[in-house]
Amino acid sequence: MSSTPPARYAVTPRTTPSRNRDRMRYDRETVHAILDADFICHLAFVSPDGAPVALPMLYARVGDSLYLHGSTGSRPMRDAAEGLRVCATVTRTDGLVLARSGVHHSINYRSVVAHGTAYRVTDPGEHRTALDAIIDHLIPERSADCRPATAKELAQTAVLRLDLEEVAAKARTGGVSDEPEDIDLPYWAGVIPITRTLGTPVPDPGMPTETPVPAYLRRLVQS
Amino acid sequence: MSSTPPARYAVTPRTTPSRNRDRMRYDRETVHAILDADFICHLAFVSPDGAPVALPMLYARVGDSLYLHGSTGSRPMRDAAEGLRVCATVTRTDGLVLARSGVHHSINYRSVVAHGTAYRVTDPGEHRTALDAIIDHLIPERSADCRPATAKELAQTAVLRLDLEEVAAKARTGGVSDEPEDIDLPYWAGVIPITRTLGTPVPDPGMPTETPVPAYLRRLVQS
Repeated sequence: MSSTPPARYAVTPRTTPSRNRDRMRYDRETVHAILDADFICHLAFVSPDGAPVALPMLYARVGDSLYLHGSTGSRPMRDAAEGLRVCATVTRTDGLVLARSGVHHSINYRSVVAHGTAYRVTDPGEHRTALDAIIDHLIPERSADCRPATAKELAQTAVLRLDLEEVAAKARTGGVSDEPEDIDLPYWAGVIPITRTLGTPVPDPGMPTETPVPAYLRRLVQS
Repeated sequence: MSSTPPARYAVTPRTTPSRNRDRMRYDRETVHAILDADFICHLAFVSPDGAPVALPMLYARVGDSLYLHGSTGSRPMRDAAEGLRVCATVTRTDGLVLARSGVHHSINYRSVVAHGTAYRVTDPGEHRTALDAIIDHLIPERSADCRPATAKELAQTAVLRLDLEEVAAKARTGGVSDEPEDIDLPYWAGVIPITRTLGTPVPDPGMPTETPVPAYLRRLVQS
């Protein structure tokens, strides 16, 4: 990150869809904003027998890299020591789109698809930074308010790094797209918003009852 | 579906993780309940150059099959005419789990991973049934209250079928799992519930203002 990164990711055949190209975005700001708005990605890789696999994983973005968290025993983590071809996809759903015609029903969504080679993080400093980033991505400010990982715990936790190079965002926003001749049909049409909400924190029963909810959690739940 | 399906899906090496086996479920009831609780899956496949790809897709379950909706022009849809190896993964997030130690932070979630070969649906009757199922999975009862697809529209819409055979559910539920020696540490610990909410329907501006919101939509939004 010492040099200034370009404002847009390169457009490649892999990141150019055959349809709906108007929904694509390649600028870093949009890609980063979508990645920062979720915490679960689906990581696709090819298993040794040639079959595709997609697994959900926690992640965080740090600059132009994604850090992915998994068990040291899981297949992608074992296979990634020398580099594993992956595709990491993040999708947030924002609305149900009800058109007058069946085929124009859709959803509003924001997604990012990142292609590349993921590597297992081996540098202890980067390893710790990545785990803290994943915790703070779930719950901002939390990594400074819990017991840090020991060296042994770090060794038992695998983190993959995927540098963002071949990456694109795709989004559908706005209202209904009906055929002009369907506009007067007597069906309700419109959008139903979808929101994700964090509820009231449920304290662990083993905690003293007077333990206050930290300010960073109160802010998170209200946001 | 004429014979009674088994109550459990077969356990295979592919559906047996190396860790956290206590989180796995293979019974049809659990697998179906998770599939029915979401409407976006991530479909992994291997592109012709050997690279893995994961794309978000709408889906619905009908019996022991998943129907996946995509553009006829998209790569997996074009490639699936003669069968495409895929992995379809569905993940719902239910809570942020804040442990006293950094490494035990986690999330509560429910996921299903289905492996198999997907085929493009070519039978017109099955095609229409699948599209209606996908609409009704997003919005129950909706397919009967919109304009049905024409034959031409059906031809422009691709649906894949993936039969559920090698499939498993994985879930984390419950509270914090801390090391016994960490229980008295002075950090807040507990679970923050995550819920997905449907908001007030936003009518399309082109609709007459007196158009009532249908009962099935009012029920959906209140549920």
